[in-house]
Amino acid sequence: MTTNNKLKVAIIGYGNIGKACEEALATAPDMELTGIYHHNDNLDNLTADVALLCVPTREVPVYAEKMLRRGISTVDSFDIHGQIFDLRQKLAAVAKEAKAVSIISAGWDPGTDSAIRALLMAMAPKGLTYTNFGPGRSMGHTVAAKAIAGVKNALSMTIPLGTGIHRRMVYVELEEGAQFETVKKALLADDYFAHDETHVIEVPSIDALNNVAHGVHLVRSGVSGTTHNQRFEFNMEINNPALTGQVMVSCARAAARLCTEQRYGAYTLIELSPLSLLPGDEETNIRALV
Amino acid sequence: MTTNNKLKVAIIGYGNIGKACEEALATAPDMELTGIYHHNDNLDNLTADVALLCVPTREVPVYAEKMLRRGISTVDSFDIHGQIFDLRQKLAAVAKEAKAVSIISAGWDPGTDSAIRALLMAMAPKGLTYTNFGPGRSMGHTVAAKAIAGVKNALSMTIPLGTGIHRRMVYVELEEGAQFETVKKALLADDYFAHDETHVIEVPSIDALNNVAHGVHLVRSGVSGTTHNQRFEFNMEINNPALTGQVMVSCARAAARLCTEQRYGAYTLIELSPLSLLPGDEETNIRALV
Repeated sequence: MTTNNKLKVAIIGYGNIGKACEEALATAPDMELTGIYHHNDNLDNLTADVALLCVPTREVPVYAEKMLRRGISTVDSFDIHGQIFDLRQKLAAVAKEAKAVSIISAGWDPGTDSAIRALLMAMAPKGLTYTNFGPGRSMGHTVAAKAIAGVKNALSMTIPLGTGIHRRMVYVELEEGAQFETVKKALLADDYFAHDETHVIEVPSIDALNNVAHGVHLVRSGVSGTTHNQRFEFNMEINNPALTGQVMVSCARAAARLCTEQRYGAYTLIELSPLSLLPGDEETNIRALV
Repeated sequence: MTTNNKLKVAIIGYGNIGKACEEALATAPDMELTGIYHHNDNLDNLTADVALLCVPTREVPVYAEKMLRRGISTVDSFDIHGQIFDLRQKLAAVAKEAKAVSIISAGWDPGTDSAIRALLMAMAPKGLTYTNFGPGRSMGHTVAAKAIAGVKNALSMTIPLGTGIHRRMVYVELEEGAQFETVKKALLADDYFAHDETHVIEVPSIDALNNVAHGVHLVRSGVSGTTHNQRFEFNMEINNPALTGQVMVSCARAAARLCTEQRYGAYTLIELSPLSLLPGDEETNIRALV
């Protein structure tokens, strides 16, 4: 905390998410921005209570460790589901030693959707939860499509078909001289697309389709005690980077509070109390929300 | 914890909620029931790590204090919204002194709905949340209707009209000789009903209408950072006591974990991490849910 009691927050990485974090920080009554560092900037002069890591997901572990070792808490939106637990274990050790806190995978999925999935498990322990994504752009699939030879630019939309099954609508803008049928065949054979219903469509301009809207339709039917057919549903339709940036900024607050309580370590969203994400005092929030 | 490592849990009060807690406990892999105590039973021999308080809401404070003083943690579903913060403050002091934990207002509203409202505030800090209840039976309004002279039995249904506005459909079974118009007039003048659109309907049998189904339609449109029109929705259609009992049992687990961490005191649902409500180990749950 600074002398004015505001939490000092720095942003590392200035793409869609970095810009969204900047906007969310500007509206946070209890925080101040101490600096924005582009991806390859020198970070030696960075001072902050919390650093928001808005770098590409695969670079998160390196940046997180670097900041934590300096005693600076971190928040990231690392989104490779299968690697989250291992990252948490690795960063927990570093954070504890440095007396800092790392909040990882702090976006909406992984992130707030995870918290809702965990709450629904507590409400109806037996049953099935289906998380349906979209319609919206898949970052991972878009990157995979762009990597196909002959593709100048691409957009892979995720379309929910229910029960966690998705269709991929892949729009491609071709390099001059590239053959659509060749590109299409290569794309459909790619491991990112081979397992889902995928449609490839040639368009003259990907830029003309640019839209950061996304959505979630999460459903659970389960059993509370011995009572079946308890039905739950969470839906959202959102601007993807704006929500991710806002969740990261809210988590900076939780990181600072955990430091104050000397609960150093690494945490995912399901390990945080919702109250710890909110500005303002405990009494006002409990009276307003409980 | 007992020697078999299971959490020892007692139930105090054996109405709808007490029975639902018994069912939820029987399905919890990590707990064992040490006793069920009816409302006016002698509690001197009660032994447990956690007592689930299933007594009428107004009696919760007395039972909670009594148990906490003996070092027994408590979970209740106290539901008088305006008094929750004061109860938390009062029980926190007792719990800290006795090295115990009290989790209060652990149902679905107040309770899990509160956690979702708080999460949505963290995701889109500016905006409006509307919690719409029903269709389902309001316990408070039903009790108020039963207290009207000439009413033998009653059922007050809450019907959601959107934006947090509700209609009351009040079904009454009359005492012999009672005049419907007199009863209706008295009921509509009662403070419980005077402020909402209320319809009173005479029926031959309330028992024939008995159904513990309830529902929630919670909506928020808000602003993440500087991005407006972020839309969120949570819906559920549930058996009311079954969900309440399940949430209380899940919270017994959180109480025990807070005790292990020596974080004694009183907590509402928005102060608990979703993970702390779930059985099983951290790694399995994080891998499955995040």
